[in-house]
Amino acid sequence: MNIDRRSFVKTAASLGVGSVLPFASDMATTAKEVLRIGFLGTGLRGQDHLAAILKRKDCRVVAICDIDPVMLGRTREIIKEHGASLPTIYDQSEEAWKDMLTREDLDAVIISTPWEWHVPMAIGALSEDLYVGLEVGGAFSLDECWELVRAEESSRGKLFFLENVCYRRDVMAIMNMVRDGLFGELIHLQGGYQHDLRAVKFNDGQQPYGGGVEFGEKGFSEARWRTPHSVHRNGELYPTHGLGPVAMMANIHRGNRMTHLTAMASKARGLHDYIVKHPQGGESHPNADVRFALGDVVTTMIHCQNGETILLQHDTSLPRPYSLGFRVQGTGGLWMDVNHSLHLEGRSEPHRWEDAAGWLERYDHPLWKKYAD
Amino acid sequence: MNIDRRSFVKTAASLGVGSVLPFASDMATTAKEVLRIGFLGTGLRGQDHLAAILKRKDCRVVAICDIDPVMLGRTREIIKEHGASLPTIYDQSEEAWKDMLTREDLDAVIISTPWEWHVPMAIGALSEDLYVGLEVGGAFSLDECWELVRAEESSRGKLFFLENVCYRRDVMAIMNMVRDGLFGELIHLQGGYQHDLRAVKFNDGQQPYGGGVEFGEKGFSEARWRTPHSVHRNGELYPTHGLGPVAMMANIHRGNRMTHLTAMASKARGLHDYIVKHPQGGESHPNADVRFALGDVVTTMIHCQNGETILLQHDTSLPRPYSLGFRVQGTGGLWMDVNHSLHLEGRSEPHRWEDAAGWLERYDHPLWKKYAD
Repeated sequence: MNIDRRSFVKTAASLGVGSVLPFASDMATTAKEVLRIGFLGTGLRGQDHLAAILKRKDCRVVAICDIDPVMLGRTREIIKEHGASLPTIYDQSEEAWKDMLTREDLDAVIISTPWEWHVPMAIGALSEDLYVGLEVGGAFSLDECWELVRAEESSRGKLFFLENVCYRRDVMAIMNMVRDGLFGELIHLQGGYQHDLRAVKFNDGQQPYGGGVEFGEKGFSEARWRTPHSVHRNGELYPTHGLGPVAMMANIHRGNRMTHLTAMASKARGLHDYIVKHPQGGESHPNADVRFALGDVVTTMIHCQNGETILLQHDTSLPRPYSLGFRVQGTGGLWMDVNHSLHLEGRSEPHRWEDAAGWLERYDHPLWKKYAD
Repeated sequence: MNIDRRSFVKTAASLGVGSVLPFASDMATTAKEVLRIGFLGTGLRGQDHLAAILKRKDCRVVAICDIDPVMLGRTREIIKEHGASLPTIYDQSEEAWKDMLTREDLDAVIISTPWEWHVPMAIGALSEDLYVGLEVGGAFSLDECWELVRAEESSRGKLFFLENVCYRRDVMAIMNMVRDGLFGELIHLQGGYQHDLRAVKFNDGQQPYGGGVEFGEKGFSEARWRTPHSVHRNGELYPTHGLGPVAMMANIHRGNRMTHLTAMASKARGLHDYIVKHPQGGESHPNADVRFALGDVVTTMIHCQNGETILLQHDTSLPRPYSLGFRVQGTGGLWMDVNHSLHLEGRSEPHRWEDAAGWLERYDHPLWKKYAD
């Protein structure tokens, strides 16, 4: 790539929509010209980003790469709805993205492909001197992690992780409180990805969420590519929702670093249970024979150089309410988004903490009466 | 001990007050005669048990052992208030408890001494064929654990841990729900001891809670004996509040067992911070130089033979609301006493789950407005 693009980008448009906001605000400061963006992957997440970008006058989508005809059809519809001109489509093969990256008129790419493509595509784009907004999912080995680090360092900071939870309004408020010292010296932090994804991991092959127990070739959208990870891999498959915000609060790589970790997985029961109990599933459905490697609850403890501990929990295969389970705890108090309670040393803020027994008495449900009496 | 006492005890009175209820109900079934009880340790916890026992007509306190004159004074007052006759007092030396255990008129003992006495006293009592109600705190080495197991097995079940949380009303209700299958197959359990004990660990040497930053010889009650453990030991010092209930739910030693664990501690800051900021403390107070070994937050992951994971958290040196942090999670749903929410597969119980951002908007406190806007 030539120097012109780099200098152009430095003065190019600032993006500012949804989870691509921080990516773009890192990239440019003044809106003199139009930023030319390419999309690698236009599944449902990529389509969200695309719709956000198409609303902006300071951006132009010049190229799109995807090989799924259904998703490309939806993508064309979105472009049409926004009255934008059709970008060049790269859909000839799984390697078509490499051609796209060599375009001279490209300033940045947004990568929203299945996880296993993230590292090669990000490295490919960085080596072409492009700014990269990368959906999370990340690397599959320590080697891949180091490759990504080296590519990012060579690019002098052109890689940006699109971890949207870092920019949740309450998380940013807590970050401000951390920086302002309200929690004192930080001691322990928690986060996680605790989200019942069963109707994401399985569908009927037509709709993205639920309606069946199909996945892989017979599934649609995330059920097609995400669920096989639950079959073949056991571990913390999606750490960044929790780790992103707390790593920023703990100043990781800003005077602190993670030194070691250990993780433990429970047995895997939730996905099988879902298949055999689903109206479109059952004991005789072929997927009832699938053995899932991913433990239903995976817990990871991380130790930091400055003495903090971080706890992560990955819990996506069981019935549960959504919760990232944040906890930010220091010598001055703690915040948890699990129970929404705030407790600060020496302050009298109202908080919603209530002991369980008190709740039990107030909770007038027949089920509780049955089991408590 | 003679066979008469054993057969007597088997038909002796059933106790039923406070945390000694389960201990006693294990011990006897019908109230034919009076159960003769001895107390090892009559600090504040022992005094609570004593007052509970003195209320019963089917029990008699025949012996008491303690070497603290202040606590013995309080104990005598309690006995006087209840109009009971004064039991024999064993207070001559730290070894006086051994004499007490050889009494022929003793059926059972309740041990509420500092932690380090628990195992020798329990083994001593079991070897005298006495029923033992043992406060928690437990053993200090694997060897001690095995000694206790062997003594308990030789006694054919006369040892009972007085872990009161197992008998909290909501915990028992959840146990009933577990047994009834409402949570399906259990997958992951959590518990802990998350209790701001700083005003227990430090006091003014006169009152049991707070008023100063003294401990050890200059402290009173728990500050005298408990706080040195925070100076010298780093680990999960008090696992049973959390582990007791979830171990019962997970059928530990009833077809399941714990196979391995790993633990991680944060840095230790809370106790030092408390000392230097306390009005009776300060940077120049001698205790400001004490280095505490106990990490403020200690997290332990345990794996079970049947595939469940258990997470424990010990957090007693930081400002925080009280919470044992229970979570009982299976293929059918989960209970958490952290946020009091209940979520059951396929049911429509109301639950109090609210997303953090929604809470933030409703939470009209100036502090939040300051940091969120």
